Amino acid sequence: MKKIKFVLGIHNHQPVGNFKWVFQKGYDVAYKPFLDTMLKHKNIKWNLHSSGMLWEFMIKEHPSYIKKIKSLILKGNLEIISGGYYEPILSVIPDYDREGQIKQLSDFIKNTLGYDCKGAWVAERVWEPSLVKSLADTGIKYTILDDVHFMAAGLKENDLKGFYTTEDQGKVLTVFPISQKLRYLIPFQDVSVCIDYFRQLANEDKDIVVVMADDGEKFGMWPGTYKHVYENGWLDNFLTAIEENSDIVETVTFSEVLNTMKPSGRIYLPTNSYFEMSEWTLPSAVQNDFDSFVKQNEFKPELKPFIRGGFWRNFLSKYDEANNMHKKMIRLSKKIHDKNVPLNSPIQKALYAGQCNCAYWHGVFGGLYLPHLRNAIYDSLLEAENLYNKKFDVKSVWTKQDFDSDGLDEFLYESPNQDIYVAAQNGGSIFEFDILNKKYNFINVLIRRYEGYHKKLKEAIENNKVTDSQEFTSIHTDAVKVKEIGLENHLIYDWYRKASLLDHFFNNDTKYEQLYGMHFREEGDFILGKYDAKIVSGNLELTRQGHVWYENAHLPVEVKKIIKPLKKNGYEAEYKIKNLSDTEMKFTFGVEQVFAFSEMTLEDKQEFVNKKVWVRQDENFGIKVKVTSSKNCDNWIVPINTVSTSENGYEKTYQGTTLVNVYKFVLNKNKSFSFKIKTEILNNK
Amino acid sequence: MKKIKFVLGIHNHQPVGNFKWVFQKGYDVAYKPFLDTMLKHKNIKWNLHSSGMLWEFMIKEHPSYIKKIKSLILKGNLEIISGGYYEPILSVIPDYDREGQIKQLSDFIKNTLGYDCKGAWVAERVWEPSLVKSLADTGIKYTILDDVHFMAAGLKENDLKGFYTTEDQGKVLTVFPISQKLRYLIPFQDVSVCIDYFRQLANEDKDIVVVMADDGEKFGMWPGTYKHVYENGWLDNFLTAIEENSDIVETVTFSEVLNTMKPSGRIYLPTNSYFEMSEWTLPSAVQNDFDSFVKQNEFKPELKPFIRGGFWRNFLSKYDEANNMHKKMIRLSKKIHDKNVPLNSPIQKALYAGQCNCAYWHGVFGGLYLPHLRNAIYDSLLEAENLYNKKFDVKSVWTKQDFDSDGLDEFLYESPNQDIYVAAQNGGSIFEFDILNKKYNFINVLIRRYEGYHKKLKEAIENNKVTDSQEFTSIHTDAVKVKEIGLENHLIYDWYRKASLLDHFFNNDTKYEQLYGMHFREEGDFILGKYDAKIVSGNLELTRQGHVWYENAHLPVEVKKIIKPLKKNGYEAEYKIKNLSDTEMKFTFGVEQVFAFSEMTLEDKQEFVNKKVWVRQDENFGIKVKVTSSKNCDNWIVPINTVSTSENGYEKTYQGTTLVNVYKFVLNKNKSFSFKIKTEILNNK
Repeated sequence: MKKIKFVLGIHNHQPVGNFKWVFQKGYDVAYKPFLDTMLKHKNIKWNLHSSGMLWEFMIKEHPSYIKKIKSLILKGNLEIISGGYYEPILSVIPDYDREGQIKQLSDFIKNTLGYDCKGAWVAERVWEPSLVKSLADTGIKYTILDDVHFMAAGLKENDLKGFYTTEDQGKVLTVFPISQKLRYLIPFQDVSVCIDYFRQLANEDKDIVVVMADDGEKFGMWPGTYKHVYENGWLDNFLTAIEENSDIVETVTFSEVLNTMKPSGRIYLPTNSYFEMSEWTLPSAVQNDFDSFVKQNEFKPELKPFIRGGFWRNFLSKYDEANNMHKKMIRLSKKIHDKNVPLNSPIQKALYAGQCNCAYWHGVFGGLYLPHLRNAIYDSLLEAENLYNKKFDVKSVWTKQDFDSDGLDEFLYESPNQDIYVAAQNGGSIFEFDILNKKYNFINVLIRRYEGYHKKLKEAIENNKVTDSQEFTSIHTDAVKVKEIGLENHLIYDWYRKASLLDHFFNNDTKYEQLYGMHFREEGDFILGKYDAKIVSGNLELTRQGHVWYENAHLPVEVKKIIKPLKKNGYEAEYKIKNLSDTEMKFTFGVEQVFAFSEMTLEDKQEFVNKKVWVRQDENFGIKVKVTSSKNCDNWIVPINTVSTSENGYEKTYQGTTLVNVYKFVLNKNKSFSFKIKTEILNNK
Repeated sequence: MKKIKFVLGIHNHQPVGNFKWVFQKGYDVAYKPFLDTMLKHKNIKWNLHSSGMLWEFMIKEHPSYIKKIKSLILKGNLEIISGGYYEPILSVIPDYDREGQIKQLSDFIKNTLGYDCKGAWVAERVWEPSLVKSLADTGIKYTILDDVHFMAAGLKENDLKGFYTTEDQGKVLTVFPISQKLRYLIPFQDVSVCIDYFRQLANEDKDIVVVMADDGEKFGMWPGTYKHVYENGWLDNFLTAIEENSDIVETVTFSEVLNTMKPSGRIYLPTNSYFEMSEWTLPSAVQNDFDSFVKQNEFKPELKPFIRGGFWRNFLSKYDEANNMHKKMIRLSKKIHDKNVPLNSPIQKALYAGQCNCAYWHGVFGGLYLPHLRNAIYDSLLEAENLYNKKFDVKSVWTKQDFDSDGLDEFLYESPNQDIYVAAQNGGSIFEFDILNKKYNFINVLIRRYEGYHKKLKEAIENNKVTDSQEFTSIHTDAVKVKEIGLENHLIYDWYRKASLLDHFFNNDTKYEQLYGMHFREEGDFILGKYDAKIVSGNLELTRQGHVWYENAHLPVEVKKIIKPLKKNGYEAEYKIKNLSDTEMKFTFGVEQVFAFSEMTLEDKQEFVNKKVWVRQDENFGIKVKVTSSKNCDNWIVPINTVSTSENGYEKTYQGTTLVNVYKFVLNKNKSFSFKIKTEILNNK
């Protein structure tokens, strides 16, 4: 028998933009009781990573927490781990920002805790081989990844009772494998099961080190865990059991391992993340295939290394809205980098805050589906943009470039007060509309998409197997919890990305009631179609000669729209619809616009007939949206509600409101119909 | 029905260091007849990538080839594709070398063919996401990868009838998927099967583009293909059939596709290579598991995306010898980069030649197993080192650093005439010994390792199912061909890396005959053990207090050796073996050295008794190795022969020769035995 080394790593994090009460709740039920329990055990050593904004919260709101942390550091019981300050997915931010984010957190920890970090936490363990160089270049000696990262390199579970070195471009980094087994045992299984496992390892009679590193929120903040971990004393009992079994196990810090043990070898780790993430990032259409393949083979551990899901970056191809944030961030990052803005300047900090990962993806937590998280990203990015605009005295300008990396150019209007981004190839629509003094993108809505887990929800509803209990279960189980009933009525799927100035040719029988459920028939090909575009005297002229189905014929129609940014916040669209066919045609033409209001009201689901002006206030933002048509039209207004999963169960989320200005008219051969729509964001006073 | 676009891409390459007759054979049986056949078909468009050294060969030896190429370019029938000049695995060379290699080939093609390349070939399709930026930064617009790269991102086969954009750090690159189906059809199946497949695609009535891009050597140079492709007219027939079926298929260049079609979307591709490679790079111990898992699931195409093998870079953890070359290359690259050496300087070119991929890995071709390919790498790297040493007037020096990225420091002696690299932690042995004026690493031998395919060879031999025929088969089949009989007698496995000054405590009954088959019993722990090391007045002092099994006791013994580089080429090792136990011990102590001679002779398998001097000439290198012992000893000499697979079947390869100086002596308590061994590389005159 040989005593094993057990490394316990805790990762505490709250997203940029999360509600302050959530930070406080985290403190009350997880961060504080965890720390207090650790303080009781003088022989236990552990390792802590907190993201920068959580450290800031502690310093501001709970200086006693910082004091306790310092005392543990002084006693040598606690190692602090660095990482990206705002917990970005390191692989999808530029090299220089990777280094900047890590340097910012390491410096902060050095200044506030007097601690020199040797290790870095890689957010969500989203790994790419090029991170080695980025980490090593900031002086980082080690990081912590999952056992699946190592198995994907061909190692077997038995090879993972130590640690490895890895290399990129001649730079070396030490990598520790997190045991998935321990991640599922701690704190969910009986203490005795954990100790038995340690004993089993000790019986191997080798130099063994095992790592459990995971979210600190598992210790008190996840449903049911507070009672389990603290009231029922799981953590205290676990630590006591370790102390009592000091012949088989000792707790150590990562640096102690580095200083006293030899690496097991050199290994190269492919792109990967923890296993669950690799399922979430797959296209929804193949997730169920993957899921059942995994289940088929789950009792064949020798095959596990060969079964792999998707690649993290594809959250950016799966969700255009995530890509939109990402490319906005990249665009700003480049601009800021080109100006050599210093590391701790407000511009740079705002940009970095806008890189916080949580809103960029979606798995079993809300993430991308949560408007307040996405808004926090835009808030940070537009803060950076505002500061940049002021510092470098930026003027209004249209530019043409491939904003979203789809190989086709977009048209970007940017001015000191607003940004209007237009995708000529996607219906000539506005896909981003930023009001800079509000630091708000009014088109920041998520469309309603099929998610792999909708199948599970439907089946559970059909079989009457849903629950809203706050039962204590691992988040990795198949439990189907819902936050409200009737969710199945909102499982509606959009076939186009929600944007503004989308041009519908509705079937002439279309009724308002068909809109919410997407039950209308689209007769035109203008929503997904490409518009020719050119910039003419400060405006963007968009033209498409497309087709409309009319009485079983596919007839040519031209839509021309000129987008004119207003001096203040908003734009005017000048429309001309022309019948290019030889047939008289009757049209029900709709211009769809979308607005991400702060919350849904009764106003967001109604129909108006024969009107020119629509106004919707948003008290929280202190604004009103005013849409004025030069000709009378009907207003069809519906909310966009998504159904998604979160740690507390399936939930419905209001994303924004769709307004369609509907014009009915008849056009003879070569005749056209014209009107203007002015969209303004006004202060609400 | 809608006509599909078929993109044919040919990749021609011969490794740095390959025999000139192989280049010429490639020209005769593949490159020339292929080009001549293409010239006959005026309506066929295609795309060609050749590595830089192959273009150089053509310019020098076959100007008519260049003339024909130019005529096809002028007619618009041929697109030329760039890539790394010397065909390096781009992901394992530094960023700046990636850009330098591509720029060198693009400039070369521009200067010799007047062609501006838009695309780049990624050697062996070894992909990492960070390559996007490297390629885009050199002006490259597209690259070509395998369908499995895209499936690993969650796309289905049906999604791969177009092309995609991808992005890194805001840089955009277009990526074309190579159809594995077409890669297996062309040129192996009936022309009609290919045309039927094209017709099937045309019947889908969509904008479809399919790509077949693969090694040009498949067209004439692979066993049996010359007869099939040219004598039996497969290629001519295939092209004629395409021309005759112009209603369903047209050939296009990659750039034509880029200029006329819209990408299917944006996708992010994880680390990957073609599927076969992902098996080869796995540890041998798990290859058979992988192989059978793949076979189990081969008729379930929906699962294919989720089944993945290893990561290319792990050839560097699987084969220490590959890692050795790689880290030597990285070390030089950094030194050269730090001095801002210009792109086309001889130093830079020699370094780049030393990055050619073929010797760094092993799959079904010889690759790493072939001494002449590895020697070519060292030849290039040492050429660069020589030029560097002269230009920057480098002096002799010992440095201590982690050369091989294993987390532990090595000791590197470097001088204008020789390099002696010592791994204190691995038996205090010399693992690299470069004679700079010969541009030769005398320890460049590959050990005998278990390879996954040895199992197949053994089974075939047992079942009498081996053949030496040059039968025409796809290289991807299970055919077992051997180049000589009796290979099973050489399936011997080394349990330590071959190096020099390895310290054996043989069992006292050990006979010379046990050496070749590794049948001796090692009583000491010095071969794999760690020596304490320090540099003392220009020499390296190595000491280990280890243990030796003696008459069922594990007794302490100290070995001290001082390595003294000679002024000329070679080193002296001053040994002192001390009995630290209270027991009188009898020793059979052996000092193993290894020399990579150019070819095996009868001298390489013999035993001498009671000698001081051993000399072995190498006519090809014009040198002789002289090993002089200060005390009489026995010389045990055996060759190292590996058994590996190649495109022509399993083969035995001479890697080098082991010399063991064997000393037999008795030591009382606290007594020691001393001697010196001088190893010299002398000019052979």
